[in-house]
Amino acid sequence: MAEKRKSHLVSERVSELPHSIFARLANLVGKGVISLGPGEPDFATPKHICNAAKKALDEGYTHYPPTTGYPDLLEALGKKLKAKNGIRADDPQTQICVTCGSTESLLLSMFTAVDPTEAVLVPDPGYMAYGPMIEMVDAEPVTYELHDDDGFQIDTDAMKKRIKPKTVGIILNNPSNPTGTVLKRSVLEEIADIAVDNNLMIISDEAYEDFTFGGAEHTSIGSFNGMEDYVVTNFSFSKSYAMAGWRVGYAVGPSSFIETMSKDHLYTSIASPALSQRAAIAAVTGPHACVEGMAREYERRRDFMLKRLNEISCLEVKVKPEGAFYVFPRIHSFGKMNSEQFSLWLLKEAKVVTIPGSEFGQMGEGFLRLSYATDMKSIASAMDRLEKLLGKK
Amino acid sequence: MAEKRKSHLVSERVSELPHSIFARLANLVGKGVISLGPGEPDFATPKHICNAAKKALDEGYTHYPPTTGYPDLLEALGKKLKAKNGIRADDPQTQICVTCGSTESLLLSMFTAVDPTEAVLVPDPGYMAYGPMIEMVDAEPVTYELHDDDGFQIDTDAMKKRIKPKTVGIILNNPSNPTGTVLKRSVLEEIADIAVDNNLMIISDEAYEDFTFGGAEHTSIGSFNGMEDYVVTNFSFSKSYAMAGWRVGYAVGPSSFIETMSKDHLYTSIASPALSQRAAIAAVTGPHACVEGMAREYERRRDFMLKRLNEISCLEVKVKPEGAFYVFPRIHSFGKMNSEQFSLWLLKEAKVVTIPGSEFGQMGEGFLRLSYATDMKSIASAMDRLEKLLGKK
Repeated sequence: MAEKRKSHLVSERVSELPHSIFARLANLVGKGVISLGPGEPDFATPKHICNAAKKALDEGYTHYPPTTGYPDLLEALGKKLKAKNGIRADDPQTQICVTCGSTESLLLSMFTAVDPTEAVLVPDPGYMAYGPMIEMVDAEPVTYELHDDDGFQIDTDAMKKRIKPKTVGIILNNPSNPTGTVLKRSVLEEIADIAVDNNLMIISDEAYEDFTFGGAEHTSIGSFNGMEDYVVTNFSFSKSYAMAGWRVGYAVGPSSFIETMSKDHLYTSIASPALSQRAAIAAVTGPHACVEGMAREYERRRDFMLKRLNEISCLEVKVKPEGAFYVFPRIHSFGKMNSEQFSLWLLKEAKVVTIPGSEFGQMGEGFLRLSYATDMKSIASAMDRLEKLLGKK
Repeated sequence: MAEKRKSHLVSERVSELPHSIFARLANLVGKGVISLGPGEPDFATPKHICNAAKKALDEGYTHYPPTTGYPDLLEALGKKLKAKNGIRADDPQTQICVTCGSTESLLLSMFTAVDPTEAVLVPDPGYMAYGPMIEMVDAEPVTYELHDDDGFQIDTDAMKKRIKPKTVGIILNNPSNPTGTVLKRSVLEEIADIAVDNNLMIISDEAYEDFTFGGAEHTSIGSFNGMEDYVVTNFSFSKSYAMAGWRVGYAVGPSSFIETMSKDHLYTSIASPALSQRAAIAAVTGPHACVEGMAREYERRRDFMLKRLNEISCLEVKVKPEGAFYVFPRIHSFGKMNSEQFSLWLLKEAKVVTIPGSEFGQMGEGFLRLSYATDMKSIASAMDRLEKLLGKK
């Protein structure tokens, strides 16, 4: 036998994947600790959605659903995409694929768009799953940098310079985790041109579409004329409807792309669960006051957190977040702590969980992510603790 | 820009994936057609399991579950594995990962065990997802042949000859889809030796563990002494508890393997749905008469189908299936039809859906898969129709 890799057990691919700090932090969360770490809504799923799942159970929805999703769910999503996002999925049955959360639809998008050794542009700082997902399809993530000086908008000239012959795609996250940035229409228009000029597929992650604040408007790049063949957009029920535990999301794009994606879906999980899909129909076709209510509560918390952070030493919010449920302040620490050390120090000394910016890429170094997907009382106590430890400005 | 692949949309990887005939057949299933195609139980999920999901909803289980699974589910699975399968998962919290069905756990097993360009042995005929899954991780499926002359048991001498320097794993399916074969203990012992001698990881798919007939006993290769570091076993709730629509399964193996697998799980779907996991606890800890009841009903149908098939011309069951819910007869057709043509002809002339054996690999050519996961009345009518078309022996 020829010599093999180190372990017969574990591939080199996965042994190189990063261990998320979330797991480490979760172990440290003890009594009396307040977490500003959450990446999911603190709200429970609205009652009418839960009731739809119970009804579906009574109706016997316990068998395999279709791989792309129940036809009536696809139909309802087609209407929503047109009315709300301006994305024309004229044939929802072939242009939409329902998945186990937008996590699965993002990974399936990579599988469908990217071959081994090819490259995909990813935001830095950006959601920490993009890089590992691209590595899972044996391709190369290439970062484009975001700066708070630019309001964390995308510098399209700099982005162009990152394109190599092997580049086949661009990941956009709008609104952004971790920065809370809502991408401007003018920036998206420039990116659309870059995609067409360079024959690139845009993989747009719009999981936070429903949470924008202060009049900021969420624009789907997939709604632009001429972009029909260049964009796959990934949406989620997890954030909008507080349905993280249900694992239901979806991708919309050109039929040829989605039909290929759904072949792959047979080999990742077969389908999003039957009950989750039936609940999703109730969510998308039912009353939307619950979504609007959550959005306004997030905005109230954002405003409060920003006000308090502006009074606390060491932390500087240069960019007012306009979406998602995160604030991403710069750290001006006294010593030489990096963001991970600073975050662990806050946990130890103030008993407040934060996520170090370095978790979101090299450009995240020197920042912290604070989530306000937790109740106002906890946010207020956390701010008190941080202020006590770090001092007032 | 350098020249790129044909389409900017779709990777070469996925454009090479096979289109399943299931989709094509599904479109042909019209009024009056009886399907012997099903790959899932016709039974509904038992009531006590559905009720557990409703209770979980009332208790607020709508948030992200832990990636590897709820601790109490892992604990319950650890006990089940020890008592039923003889697999010692002494630390269930690190040795078990709950997934969106065993489909996801199989794919995650490939991701974890296999690097690009490496090779994995797969059964032929075998479940049609194995090859594409291996191709999704950019590795090479290499078949080992199964023959009805050997009762579709594995010829371990032939298997050894298929091992190349790049081979890192063996997929076993026990009981087998499509042949219904339950692997003998003596054969499994020989395969265990092959794995250890050649430093290979065994990826065992035991989704049909609960359905064995006529006294045949299901043996988990992961229960053998000395195999602790050489086996990852994949189980499913879909078949045993008629829970296909819930998407819940699990993998058990060495801690180092499972911990790495669960890192990947964050990027495939994050976790199996909360409700599905709570329902799974009720399934695994609750009364098992329902499972035994389904197994005995499948056995009754198997016996009936075998009796009828033995009287029908053109179809020969050389190997009495001892597990799963399939019969895999040889076709002795009048003309020169291959199995796909024969299957389509049966659909057209007898209005009976069958799956051509060629769907399960080259060695499946000349066979048909008939599922008895449908009610007895439909099976009887289907047999009448086949007998009318094909004649009596």
